[in-house]
Amino acid sequence: MVRTIDLNSDLGESFGAWAMGDDAAILNIVSSANVACGFHAGSPAALLATLRAAKERGVTIGAHVAYPDLVGFGRRNMDVASDELTADVIYQIGALQGLAQAAGTEVRYVKPHGALYNTIAHEQRQALAVIDAILAINPRLPLVGLAGSGVLALAQEKGLPTIAEAFADRAYHADGTLVSRRAAGAVLHDAKQVAQRMLQLMTEGGITSIEGQFTPLKADSICVHGDSPGAVEMASQIRHLLEAQGIAIRAFIDA
Amino acid sequence: MVRTIDLNSDLGESFGAWAMGDDAAILNIVSSANVACGFHAGSPAALLATLRAAKERGVTIGAHVAYPDLVGFGRRNMDVASDELTADVIYQIGALQGLAQAAGTEVRYVKPHGALYNTIAHEQRQALAVIDAILAINPRLPLVGLAGSGVLALAQEKGLPTIAEAFADRAYHADGTLVSRRAAGAVLHDAKQVAQRMLQLMTEGGITSIEGQFTPLKADSICVHGDSPGAVEMASQIRHLLEAQGIAIRAFIDA
Amino acid sequence: MVRTIDLNSDLGESFGAWAMGDDAAILNIVSSANVACGFHAGSPAALLATLRAAKERGVTIGAHVAYPDLVGFGRRNMDVASDELTADVIYQIGALQGLAQAAGTEVRYVKPHGALYNTIAHEQRQALAVIDAILAINPRLPLVGLAGSGVLALAQEKGLPTIAEAFADRAYHADGTLVSRRAAGAVLHDAKQVAQRMLQLMTEGGITSIEGQFTPLKADSICVHGDSPGAVEMASQIRHLLEAQGIAIRAFIDA
Amino acid sequence: MVRTIDLNSDLGESFGAWAMGDDAAILNIVSSANVACGFHAGSPAALLATLRAAKERGVTIGAHVAYPDLVGFGRRNMDVASDELTADVIYQIGALQGLAQAAGTEVRYVKPHGALYNTIAHEQRQALAVIDAILAINPRLPLVGLAGSGVLALAQEKGLPTIAEAFADRAYHADGTLVSRRAAGAVLHDAKQVAQRMLQLMTEGGITSIEGQFTPLKADSICVHGDSPGAVEMASQIRHLLEAQGIAIRAFIDA
Repeated sequence: MVRTIDLNSDLGESFGAWAMGDDAAILNIVSSANVACGFHAGSPAALLATLRAAKERGVTIGAHVAYPDLVGFGRRNMDVASDELTADVIYQIGALQGLAQAAGTEVRYVKPHGALYNTIAHEQRQALAVIDAILAINPRLPLVGLAGSGVLALAQEKGLPTIAEAFADRAYHADGTLVSRRAAGAVLHDAKQVAQRMLQLMTEGGITSIEGQFTPLKADSICVHGDSPGAVEMASQIRHLLEAQGIAIRAFIDA
Repeated sequence: MVRTIDLNSDLGESFGAWAMGDDAAILNIVSSANVACGFHAGSPAALLATLRAAKERGVTIGAHVAYPDLVGFGRRNMDVASDELTADVIYQIGALQGLAQAAGTEVRYVKPHGALYNTIAHEQRQALAVIDAILAINPRLPLVGLAGSGVLALAQEKGLPTIAEAFADRAYHADGTLVSRRAAGAVLHDAKQVAQRMLQLMTEGGITSIEGQFTPLKADSICVHGDSPGAVEMASQIRHLLEAQGIAIRAFIDA
Repeated sequence: MVRTIDLNSDLGESFGAWAMGDDAAILNIVSSANVACGFHAGSPAALLATLRAAKERGVTIGAHVAYPDLVGFGRRNMDVASDELTADVIYQIGALQGLAQAAGTEVRYVKPHGALYNTIAHEQRQALAVIDAILAINPRLPLVGLAGSGVLALAQEKGLPTIAEAFADRAYHADGTLVSRRAAGAVLHDAKQVAQRMLQLMTEGGITSIEGQFTPLKADSICVHGDSPGAVEMASQIRHLLEAQGIAIRAFIDA
Repeated sequence: MVRTIDLNSDLGESFGAWAMGDDAAILNIVSSANVACGFHAGSPAALLATLRAAKERGVTIGAHVAYPDLVGFGRRNMDVASDELTADVIYQIGALQGLAQAAGTEVRYVKPHGALYNTIAHEQRQALAVIDAILAINPRLPLVGLAGSGVLALAQEKGLPTIAEAFADRAYHADGTLVSRRAAGAVLHDAKQVAQRMLQLMTEGGITSIEGQFTPLKADSICVHGDSPGAVEMASQIRHLLEAQGIAIRAFIDA
């Protein structure tokens, strides 16, 4: 039996004349693409080009839904009312699904972006608003969330499938939570070390925490970045090390 | 055999805290609702409310796609490149389709709004970009256009179904074109006269032009307005006069 | 010696095709206009028209600065970084100052709007960011804030003049804080009662709190609303009652 | 007597998380910076940083005003009504002036960007709307336009000072108009050749047209680009060649 793991990355983050990330390069590495939906990034023509490239490479598409905050790139907490957040998420999934259809592919999962991702990991009201949105448009679309976070349990309770993800380049506490970006050592920069950690995740079922203990972590997908040449290189090393150890990179859900 | 005609109107034109039109009132009159898609008007939560109300009343939904110009309400010509316009239209149809699904209904046709509507009536490049968008997302979605205009013939040539519409409150020239809004007498304000003209359209197959001759006009749908109490009253009079003469108001495509 | 008080109201809240409020009517009542700056409301042409009307009537102009959240009308908390908030506020003051110059008038004070107003009443980081913005562009522009709130003391400490305001239609607790909008009785709807309270404020130096005690309140300006016919009527009654009692309505700073 | 010429370039074109151009590098080369005002590019915090850097280097600031078209980067023609265009331009100049004040500098001229620049070179209605805007906010702010174009004569007629500019990397026809970007040879890529042409402009008062004849060209400023490493290098070569020939680079108006 072949062991497999999904690699996901954020794509479609250009906007009009502004380019971001190397979508073509990262599409050769990942199995799943979290594609922006226009609220934090992603102008329609750029999104369509990314979706066509993903289709060509057989990469699975997810809707990377966000707060309506282009100038803040969806990274700022916003106290959006539940009915507005639900409608915003439906709108974004629908828009990307339209573009995906035009590219001959389909939206297969939903991953909240940036501040929305972090907020729903702990705020139940907004988490429910996002879950309601997915249930309303397509209750078979899984929600991607932080492995071990409450939002995944909540989604399952509401009947929504989920995908638990681990972050390749982030340090974890012994209780399985992420080390805050403001803390020293929160973000890992050594591509080899990061790749080794992901191999540890796959073979031991967990990683070494910042406190030094082994921390069990059950992940369906590994999140890698592609927004700089260094990030693409790190993603590439993770893929190559895992494959060299007989672990196939494969989307959690087929494209 | 019962004679039928479709009545369509623009809805979903509120945006956040700003209300526009009386969607609830107009939904009791029309059979088809051209619902904004967020580019010229229509915030997601407001759109979802309008779509749910349309679903309740069995009104057919169309995507009212526009240029990305919120502050100009989509009324200003924009020289958008073809690939950008195509992607913009796909994005909007998809977004509205997502919200429509959540409301238990579906987008059944596409009607360009404002400046885009007028531009594609005469500019083939942008017309093709819009047609390409609909073909890419769903080639069975009809395009609504001005009765007699070239864009309808072009769409049919490309394999797209079309819906020809007449404007209830606009004067026509003898050649079937609309009198420019800048000309005297271009917009009709007398609800009774307008209703009589639409009865003439249904019974005689045309209307009296501004020059005084009878002008044949073949329309699948009549466009009425709902953005003021007077407009709602005019729409209501049209419906009542037609129904009183045995003409049923029915969507060109079922909801 | 004539007793005077300033009446201020939010204006310029239309956006493109969407109208809001009756600026012409309210400009006949108030002495100071908090004019939107484009971030929560206010398209440039609409703002210029409002500023010209204010100039004609001799009404003093303030910049009603807000979070960059058009669809949320600036009513949603946003966790904006300090340097971004400072630059956003400077940008808005400058934009309105440009339009004011074109209208032959000047921005004379700054009043944060909606969620920003409420947030800086208790969050020192964002309060300082707003204060820094005003200091950077013009340290003689007073900041309007809730009478008794910490932001006014903080601004004074930093060398910025301040204007303390009371809300005509809001209930107060005995400690001088506003009753939350979610609580019963938080918003007063009886125009006569509201006018009497403002007379009490002027003659007794305080108002009766929701708990029943007299609560001292020192206000340089009274905020009234103009976003509905009822609100305009209430503002009018306040003005007339105060004037009938010999209290002149006069801007805190001349136009 | 030292011969001098102004070098100008477009700056402040980043937006939120999206970077564009190397403002720090180009500020070491040019004497005047056309700084975006938020309508086609330029988020407030990024603009403030660019303005502070310009202030440090003594570079003169101009307001690079544009159509309200972020996703199109102001490069698409828009049929904006005159009163709206006038208000849009005033708003942008004011916003940049506010940020400039905060940075200890001032807006010294106005240069329309992209499609607006091209449109007002031939469309008198929009040209007048822009001229009216500048006259309304500050009639001493010069308007930058294409050397020889009608908009400069029109502006002078209305009492506005003007700055005529030449494009370093563009081919000209024998009548002094620019070769369309769609034509072969319209854009010059050889930095040495471009620098030589600009030396010819300075020493001979004109350049060799694409048709081969010498074309007189009277320019107060030379526009160079900084949006790529190659563009920065070209700008640098122009500066060095001119300086080596005893021509000082100096802003048309002091900062």
